[in-house]
Amino acid sequence: MSRSPLIFQALPGIPEIEPGADLPRLIIEALAAVRIVLAEGDVLVVAQKIVSKCEGRYLDLRTIEPSARAMEIAAELDKDPRLVEAVLAESSAVIRSAHGVLITRHRLGLVMANAGIDRSNLASHAGEDTVLLLPSDPDESARRLRQGILSRSGVAPGVVISDSFGRPWRLGVVNIALGAAGITPLKDLRNVPDRVGRRMQSTSVAIADAIAAGAGLAMGETGESTPVIHVRGLEYRGDGAARELIRPADQDLFL
Amino acid sequence: MSRSPLIFQALPGIPEIEPGADLPRLIIEALAAVRIVLAEGDVLVVAQKIVSKCEGRYLDLRTIEPSARAMEIAAELDKDPRLVEAVLAESSAVIRSAHGVLITRHRLGLVMANAGIDRSNLASHAGEDTVLLLPSDPDESARRLRQGILSRSGVAPGVVISDSFGRPWRLGVVNIALGAAGITPLKDLRNVPDRVGRRMQSTSVAIADAIAAGAGLAMGETGESTPVIHVRGLEYRGDGAARELIRPADQDLFL
Repeated sequence: MSRSPLIFQALPGIPEIEPGADLPRLIIEALAAVRIVLAEGDVLVVAQKIVSKCEGRYLDLRTIEPSARAMEIAAELDKDPRLVEAVLAESSAVIRSAHGVLITRHRLGLVMANAGIDRSNLASHAGEDTVLLLPSDPDESARRLRQGILSRSGVAPGVVISDSFGRPWRLGVVNIALGAAGITPLKDLRNVPDRVGRRMQSTSVAIADAIAAGAGLAMGETGESTPVIHVRGLEYRGDGAARELIRPADQDLFL
Repeated sequence: MSRSPLIFQALPGIPEIEPGADLPRLIIEALAAVRIVLAEGDVLVVAQKIVSKCEGRYLDLRTIEPSARAMEIAAELDKDPRLVEAVLAESSAVIRSAHGVLITRHRLGLVMANAGIDRSNLASHAGEDTVLLLPSDPDESARRLRQGILSRSGVAPGVVISDSFGRPWRLGVVNIALGAAGITPLKDLRNVPDRVGRRMQSTSVAIADAIAAGAGLAMGETGESTPVIHVRGLEYRGDGAARELIRPADQDLFL
């Protein structure tokens, strides 16, 4: 018997997102334009950047007064001290600061470069000194988006809010799940026997991160021409949140 | 205009793989069974385990004499000293050894748990003391598979050999590209302007890892009932190798 294919479809036609935009409506219109009728079990992967824009998470660097510590790190890394101050304000700890790279633990628990603060692909009217922060609660953003789509379409899709992350040991970024709703983000395998009856060695699979990574391929390289991907064929409905994917600090060998 | 969907199709019917199996033929038969006609630009993602089995990369732990260092690490981690010795023999350095986890730099350059040595999903006749090593040169394995499929079908697909990897800071494994042929594994963005003309901040995208991650969702959880995934809709033909994805040690902040 053939298993259903897993299909990632980029949704064209999402306009530049302004603060307060009706994202559920824009996504439903984009689905209709490619004749996709949303079904239970479908997942929508949405680039963090448009969620942050929708939530107005802009920061004007001209309002920032860099601390002595930010100035010191900025000098070492050859970065804008105001940006470094903004990164530190978003973070609970500096993990690495070297080779021009500032990796911190974001107050959400995510270990990432520059606390996810982004200067690229902002609207041209945003100005040179404007940056974009992560959503303040990406799981809550995903839940709201799911709820908004449900109330307009009658169907509650899974939602993943994705962002590109660098990795230790490997070159290149891959997309991971920053926020999630309506899916099982982490699939526990500890009680799944393999086909000769042994217990599996891996304890869990990061389903939401794999969904984000696959969707990243369909988004294309600049990540914003098609910032929403419709996914069909997954079997991971649930009610988890992406925060479940963050390894607790006391179980982490690389903090 | 609608972009083509990205489709991951699991190929059922791949039998238990014995050393020396004709993997290109088995894959072509599995494609035919689901009526997929291979086309230029298609990619096949193949689980490392069946490649290693095909290459007979079995190791009988009863032939291993653990060194003093292996015995010490094994005692700390509560592991089989013969397995630890096998891991050390496959590795160039121990990166972390704590909380029951042994993370090394494999001689291929990959930083991973247990040097990729696997005890699950081996054929029942393999015996309790048999483990499976990674292919000795996964990029070469991918090239051979691509060549074998070309010579039998007239079409040279991209090939990715995937394996599940744990990550610092995040729970759960995701699949990454251990070997690759016929694709661009790492897409350089340094000269791609964003849509308002700024340079992108991320320097490159780990295309092959994202392909492996997406395919992992289609393989299912035990990773062997459908160890081959056909992917259509990618635009990353090339002639790169997965080894390009390994971050050089002197650029790595976490070694």
